[in-house]
Amino acid sequence: MTFRVGIIGAGMIGQEHAQRLDQRVSGTQVAGIADMNRDRASHVAAVTSGAGVYASGHDLIAAPDIDAVVVTTWGPAHEEYVLAAIATGKPVFCEKPLATTSAACLRIVDAEVAAGRRLVQVGFMRRSDPGYQAMKQDLDDGMIGEPLLAHCAHRNPSVPDSYTSDMPINDTAVHEFDTMRWLLDEDIAAISVLLPRRSRRASSHLDDPQVLLLETASGVLIDVEVNVNCDYGYDIRCELVGETGTLTLANPERVDIRRTGLDSVRVPADWRARFGRAYDIELQEWANSLAAGQAGGASSWDGYEATAICEAGLTALASRERVTVEARQRPSLYGQPLASPAARA
Amino acid sequence: MTFRVGIIGAGMIGQEHAQRLDQRVSGTQVAGIADMNRDRASHVAAVTSGAGVYASGHDLIAAPDIDAVVVTTWGPAHEEYVLAAIATGKPVFCEKPLATTSAACLRIVDAEVAAGRRLVQVGFMRRSDPGYQAMKQDLDDGMIGEPLLAHCAHRNPSVPDSYTSDMPINDTAVHEFDTMRWLLDEDIAAISVLLPRRSRRASSHLDDPQVLLLETASGVLIDVEVNVNCDYGYDIRCELVGETGTLTLANPERVDIRRTGLDSVRVPADWRARFGRAYDIELQEWANSLAAGQAGGASSWDGYEATAICEAGLTALASRERVTVEARQRPSLYGQPLASPAARA
Amino acid sequence: MTFRVGIIGAGMIGQEHAQRLDQRVSGTQVAGIADMNRDRASHVAAVTSGAGVYASGHDLIAAPDIDAVVVTTWGPAHEEYVLAAIATGKPVFCEKPLATTSAACLRIVDAEVAAGRRLVQVGFMRRSDPGYQAMKQDLDDGMIGEPLLAHCAHRNPSVPDSYTSDMPINDTAVHEFDTMRWLLDEDIAAISVLLPRRSRRASSHLDDPQVLLLETASGVLIDVEVNVNCDYGYDIRCELVGETGTLTLANPERVDIRRTGLDSVRVPADWRARFGRAYDIELQEWANSLAAGQAGGASSWDGYEATAICEAGLTALASRERVTVEARQRPSLYGQPLASPAARA
Amino acid sequence: MTFRVGIIGAGMIGQEHAQRLDQRVSGTQVAGIADMNRDRASHVAAVTSGAGVYASGHDLIAAPDIDAVVVTTWGPAHEEYVLAAIATGKPVFCEKPLATTSAACLRIVDAEVAAGRRLVQVGFMRRSDPGYQAMKQDLDDGMIGEPLLAHCAHRNPSVPDSYTSDMPINDTAVHEFDTMRWLLDEDIAAISVLLPRRSRRASSHLDDPQVLLLETASGVLIDVEVNVNCDYGYDIRCELVGETGTLTLANPERVDIRRTGLDSVRVPADWRARFGRAYDIELQEWANSLAAGQAGGASSWDGYEATAICEAGLTALASRERVTVEARQRPSLYGQPLASPAARA
Repeated sequence: MTFRVGIIGAGMIGQEHAQRLDQRVSGTQVAGIADMNRDRASHVAAVTSGAGVYASGHDLIAAPDIDAVVVTTWGPAHEEYVLAAIATGKPVFCEKPLATTSAACLRIVDAEVAAGRRLVQVGFMRRSDPGYQAMKQDLDDGMIGEPLLAHCAHRNPSVPDSYTSDMPINDTAVHEFDTMRWLLDEDIAAISVLLPRRSRRASSHLDDPQVLLLETASGVLIDVEVNVNCDYGYDIRCELVGETGTLTLANPERVDIRRTGLDSVRVPADWRARFGRAYDIELQEWANSLAAGQAGGASSWDGYEATAICEAGLTALASRERVTVEARQRPSLYGQPLASPAARA
Repeated sequence: MTFRVGIIGAGMIGQEHAQRLDQRVSGTQVAGIADMNRDRASHVAAVTSGAGVYASGHDLIAAPDIDAVVVTTWGPAHEEYVLAAIATGKPVFCEKPLATTSAACLRIVDAEVAAGRRLVQVGFMRRSDPGYQAMKQDLDDGMIGEPLLAHCAHRNPSVPDSYTSDMPINDTAVHEFDTMRWLLDEDIAAISVLLPRRSRRASSHLDDPQVLLLETASGVLIDVEVNVNCDYGYDIRCELVGETGTLTLANPERVDIRRTGLDSVRVPADWRARFGRAYDIELQEWANSLAAGQAGGASSWDGYEATAICEAGLTALASRERVTVEARQRPSLYGQPLASPAARA
Repeated sequence: MTFRVGIIGAGMIGQEHAQRLDQRVSGTQVAGIADMNRDRASHVAAVTSGAGVYASGHDLIAAPDIDAVVVTTWGPAHEEYVLAAIATGKPVFCEKPLATTSAACLRIVDAEVAAGRRLVQVGFMRRSDPGYQAMKQDLDDGMIGEPLLAHCAHRNPSVPDSYTSDMPINDTAVHEFDTMRWLLDEDIAAISVLLPRRSRRASSHLDDPQVLLLETASGVLIDVEVNVNCDYGYDIRCELVGETGTLTLANPERVDIRRTGLDSVRVPADWRARFGRAYDIELQEWANSLAAGQAGGASSWDGYEATAICEAGLTALASRERVTVEARQRPSLYGQPLASPAARA
Repeated sequence: MTFRVGIIGAGMIGQEHAQRLDQRVSGTQVAGIADMNRDRASHVAAVTSGAGVYASGHDLIAAPDIDAVVVTTWGPAHEEYVLAAIATGKPVFCEKPLATTSAACLRIVDAEVAAGRRLVQVGFMRRSDPGYQAMKQDLDDGMIGEPLLAHCAHRNPSVPDSYTSDMPINDTAVHEFDTMRWLLDEDIAAISVLLPRRSRRASSHLDDPQVLLLETASGVLIDVEVNVNCDYGYDIRCELVGETGTLTLANPERVDIRRTGLDSVRVPADWRARFGRAYDIELQEWANSLAAGQAGGASSWDGYEATAICEAGLTALASRERVTVEARQRPSLYGQPLASPAARA
């Protein structure tokens, strides 16, 4: 059976997901597009195998020939469409963030809990990256004993002028927040923000780089360098330090080049080059979950936790103090609380 | 539109391709299976979304609800089914080898030329491997100047007892034969076989390792170590040496592990771990070619050339002399003769 | 000319330096040994080409046939012997730390300033490590622009039970303190200490791992993981993050081993394996400075600064607060204050 | 005791060895220099700590205040000076080749055998390279089982116009000939030469690259790519393939640089950068052998074997046929014949 997917939001990521779902994911086709800008929606529809253009996201969600919904609008509109999809009982894949405030996230969580089954998957695609998945497998297999520390770096070659000082936390490190919760199977308990010497490549309204310090409930200390003007490439790094060894995420390397005095591999140019494969896998997994009738992957609850950490991070950035992350208790729909680390021992 | 694919041959690779085409490739579903062993066919059919079981490969090829054919039987049966598919005008994907003799390959070539369009793709999946593709791109971009030499190794941890001394050439190095023709855009002109000291891990009826020396028309010298009892893993290596630099195929590395005094990455355990992704891409490309109405990828002609090199290789193994590879002239259906190397200069 | 060196302190590092100066360093021979334990001194003397055994360090320093002195006693005795050597006008190489308190270091600085020329070199051997030297050259050549951040790790497989919670700072990270001052050509302005989840491999009286945060005068933020029970090997890591690139210290790798499913290089077992070559170079440089008549390398002032950072670090460990590093003004004998970073721009 | 060394030949390598022996090697000083060009000899003498200039190499060898001799003239003069040193009973270190013909080498061997003790060490410095030494240790420890194959590459960025087609064998691959004999502990039984497509970077009188195939007595097959116009750097590579694993010589890497889209390490610019440390160690070992009264390292016999392989290689280059290497029986002064490989099993 082929599921008919409707996409709300025809910007860059919406276009990419439309192509994925239409041409690379088995079991889905793109049947509808909606966007505030109707021309943009038509443009995307034209590259699919026959998607209709809807007047609004709500029309698309309500349409009987749409089986499932993908939300790729800008963040402030996520809540509205995700809630509408839940109200119709249709599965919905929402790009990160789930919503821009933890209060909005909780409204989604409450609606989903009331619906009684998981309908929402949040687009934290690193959980589908083969590299991170291999790290998680090795950690869970006890290859390095209990984790004690993690060192992360999230580097972009540059950012547009519209990128402001809250975005290293809200837009960039939010991926590390979710990835660390998932890798370590633990919640984040506190966050601090350090501001090193500023790069002269950063705009005047941007503190860059930033170093974030996260602490998990069991005391694992995670440092995250966010450095969005590093110039040389898109570089995502992660080392987990355990009691008996370490695991380091390898960069995808295809060819080793020896020329002009150097032995080199390329650094990916951007997130598409680095994580394109993870997006493919993520949406294939989502397509499989449609067939299974129950959402998997990152849940509304995970979306809520990530947003709560961002909110604490912004407070820490403003105050330059350590801020604890307060979160509501997890509803049973989202499974047991994250395992206590002793479970791995 | 979804193409209904029929698979002839329900052995290991047939089962894998059935899963791919049914669950990971966009635009295809598996609609039929045929195998000498009907139980085996039924078993594979059961894991698809509704494939029928056919009494014979010929019934499957003839069936009106089969749009395209995949041949994954043992090699000696390839010719018969590929010719039958061509006769019905249905596209056919044939696992390597295209046929077990160059004469049989030429019968396929002649039939396809008579049909007037490309219907056959041969399963040389390394052409779809992201690593080899990146090497080819870099070579074609002039990153290392003109190629002069290539060093290859094809290592398996072990082989079953049924693996005999002709198979390093016919079953194993045949991948290098095709890959080198494609990478260098040149035909192979001659082959020699050297027998180094035998591994005590090899069976008594197997000369292992073997070193094959290939020469292209323009004089590029290629050494290929075939070593199918190397014990430590499945290791595929390739370095192209050009006039101003070299390109080396990187092994896929996901995690770097530091423990017990070593800083390590894993070597893939087998060809599935190493080339699984290439198979996915290859069959997606084939699915796309179905929509386009014209086969792409490795052609019948490429299948013929590979088999002709194998035949010369076996003569070289027996005689321990250098043997030239004689090939018929390429029909225009298969494009221009491979570009002379001067074209890149 | 061959300089006759006297060594005070015949423990492990004293024995190693005796062998270096006698058998691997050009221009020196070991002419005398003194140790509280006379047997131990005799034992070391026996493996040199004729060193005499002295009743005390002071006798050795005073002896007319001793041209230069090496102090390798335990730390609390350093001040006494270094001051005595200065008093006789003899060059002295003192293993780190220069002295165990910053007050004692300043007494040495004052004595050397009064003597009017540099007589003291402190054994911060990483300044002589080819890897760190290459990093410094690249940084100074502007390869990565201005430095913004540094990530360091200092990992030991295990430590004896006598190793206590102050020693990660005083004995271990003190190397990073000096190396960072030298690499960045800047003083350290503040230090904080973070205590992550404890390793169960650490003894009950040791907080391990520790993460130290250093800030330089210009704002470069340095994180140092000290992890002395990491189990897997001796691993010294350093990445400098600049405005346009990064520099990472490579581990010395001699052989890549492929076996049993892994592609591995060894991690050094201990500091001897990792830094033995740096010690050789350091003492050869010292021998050359004897001929030149003026000490080079790390100075008494560098020894004082390192001890002052340790003292601030211990305060930070106790208080869990950020502590500024207060230092006296640098005497002109030790050159200009460290260059302001603007100089590199 | 300090040995007074006389150096015959004040060209580039003579100057380098003079500095080493005078300033970096413990236990030697340079006491005399002789060169056809007296100015050149004086120039080198001036940078030592007081070496005298001798009118001829024979005067230097005969001088009572010269304890040991280093021969760094051009190759054709080696025999004369080495024989003269043997005649005086003085230890002599001779740069490679020992002599330019195997007949000349045998005259040296005969003279040394007549003298009754080893006086000659040949400058095959790779035996002192820490990388090759680690490979040998791992091989001898049985880390990869019995060796079956070796893949070598010897690449130079470019060569002067005076470099002719015999020199890839005589000057360049001669290092691999000796290294392989030493690593594998086996003699070379046969050699073939293959000429791939020529690099347009090579001069008109140079066949470059060349591929040499060596076979040991037990059948280990060694391929050696000699490529002296590779443009990108000085690159020495070696992989030993054993029955259960492989060992690969690592390139010395000090700093990993990430900038401008690449993650790179430098390739050494030339043999000085790559093997400077091996030369230091080699001459320190020689200095130690002076004290011990018996030469170690590569012997006259090793020098003879290397030259015999070169002669066979030149015959193979001219004939394009496989040529067996014929060698006289080894005198007992040079130890047992190389161990049969079974010894390692």
